[in-house]
Amino acid sequence: MTTKIILDLDTGIDDALALAYALGSPELELIGVTGTYGNVLVETGTRNALALLELFGSPDVPVFAGPTHASTRDSFEVLPISEFIHGKNGVGEAVLAEPTAQVQEKSAVDFLIESVREHGDNLVIVPTGPSTTIAAAIDADPSFAENARIVMMGGALTVPGNVSPVAEANVNQDPEATDRLFRTAADVTMIGLDVTLQTLLTYEETAQWRALGTPGGDFLAEATDYYIRSYETNSPHLGGCGLHDPLAVGVAVDPSLVELFDVNLKVDTEGALRGRVIADETRLNDPVKTAHVAINVDKERFVSEFMRRITGLVSR
Amino acid sequence: MTTKIILDLDTGIDDALALAYALGSPELELIGVTGTYGNVLVETGTRNALALLELFGSPDVPVFAGPTHASTRDSFEVLPISEFIHGKNGVGEAVLAEPTAQVQEKSAVDFLIESVREHGDNLVIVPTGPSTTIAAAIDADPSFAENARIVMMGGALTVPGNVSPVAEANVNQDPEATDRLFRTAADVTMIGLDVTLQTLLTYEETAQWRALGTPGGDFLAEATDYYIRSYETNSPHLGGCGLHDPLAVGVAVDPSLVELFDVNLKVDTEGALRGRVIADETRLNDPVKTAHVAINVDKERFVSEFMRRITGLVSR
Repeated sequence: MTTKIILDLDTGIDDALALAYALGSPELELIGVTGTYGNVLVETGTRNALALLELFGSPDVPVFAGPTHASTRDSFEVLPISEFIHGKNGVGEAVLAEPTAQVQEKSAVDFLIESVREHGDNLVIVPTGPSTTIAAAIDADPSFAENARIVMMGGALTVPGNVSPVAEANVNQDPEATDRLFRTAADVTMIGLDVTLQTLLTYEETAQWRALGTPGGDFLAEATDYYIRSYETNSPHLGGCGLHDPLAVGVAVDPSLVELFDVNLKVDTEGALRGRVIADETRLNDPVKTAHVAINVDKERFVSEFMRRITGLVSR
Repeated sequence: MTTKIILDLDTGIDDALALAYALGSPELELIGVTGTYGNVLVETGTRNALALLELFGSPDVPVFAGPTHASTRDSFEVLPISEFIHGKNGVGEAVLAEPTAQVQEKSAVDFLIESVREHGDNLVIVPTGPSTTIAAAIDADPSFAENARIVMMGGALTVPGNVSPVAEANVNQDPEATDRLFRTAADVTMIGLDVTLQTLLTYEETAQWRALGTPGGDFLAEATDYYIRSYETNSPHLGGCGLHDPLAVGVAVDPSLVELFDVNLKVDTEGALRGRVIADETRLNDPVKTAHVAINVDKERFVSEFMRRITGLVSR
């Protein structure tokens, strides 16, 4: 039986790779994409998602728009660092044809709530951007937090942050929302920098896509090379780009790719620690642990699965 | 075969419990105690260690004095919080007879270096205070970091600190020293707040010691009750006192009491993050991991071992 999946993306280069991973995984049925802000504006991200679904041969997957900014703010602007990593168009200036399909009228929040009600445990939600949309669903439906199964890319528990010494970029966009998620959701798997900075891609792999000579292969090679170049500037010690968002999809398919640490989490929202993910000391001795943080990853197996699935998808 | 052990204590109520745990463990041969500052001054801590060794029937174990303050500072004064937790005399105002024996003339640093040279892997060093003495040994002998096997109580990786939102008390006393330790030592097991705030003792257990009617039982009950009272004020949500230092000895005896996470660590030394233990991102993908952080503990089994060993020791 396939698992139904909803991707909550701020598309974004590694979001595009996550989308390709999901579409290249026969174990998953992608029932929708919800679009959030983060790497890009909501309108850029949803446009990219629609275009990518068409490029990857799945034009019928619906795309829904979420809130355009954190509930604690009045607006959102793309950070210079995000534009440096993902490019102005979000996909490293690689060319993506204008999509034929449109964003759905139904909101991302309503789609998430209805999907959890309908599919329960047979649905996994994979947010790869800020937690704003998920927190809005939690606030709108009292049963959502209890019933949603979430595998999120975000946070840094045992390693430093990437936008501040304590904060990872997704959590940093809306710390209050991620805090709400951690304090209320019954089942959250956190795929943070702890593991995603260990799963690296290099020009060797993107060359394999380029060699396919297909539109999908060309696009992924061009976008991902842009992404790798930003890592050469910002994190030269890594020797590649982090496969952040795809790893969350990888774990949704196969949790055995990572070692999980069960813990109850919170997010600091004040001062220099704003955006830090840390154990909630008031629930340290609660036998029920609601979060599962990936602290180790089988890098070789993941990168091999990543290449097999994505290369398979864009070979056509 | 027994394992030789050196305890590096700032004695301290839970240091006294750690000492009792070591003496009550037939698997261990305590070859010396080195005294550091922290909960108390070095002179108070070494005096307490000598008196406790006599009370617990091991008057021949030598005690050595370490540096009186961090190498980055000119002096050390006991913090008000330490005095509140451990009392003015370091053992909760419980009465300890003046010891007969004296502190050795040899320095703690020399004793540590010579012991590692002599015993190698058959020696475990358990520091339960600041890392100052260990860092001094690392600086004084180029082979120490490579050959010493260390099981330290200190730090907080996945949970907030206890003297600041990021810093645990021992690391906070000398962050530069713990950073030096993590960056150079080949084999450090970290028993931090992540697990020690899960291993709790209550008045129920101390009543068992009091009921023995022995000098050792009376002393431990009185000192530990003082310690539990400080937890009622500072951490009422826990419902007991944390068995910080004894857990490090417990793990030196039996590593299977905890689940270890292998990682390369560093300590932040600047600003609001001073004293934070976190993964060293520059060694994140180094296959060799020099630190092993306890992230889960078998609480029931540990507290049961703790009571069995210590009650056995003070029953005589």
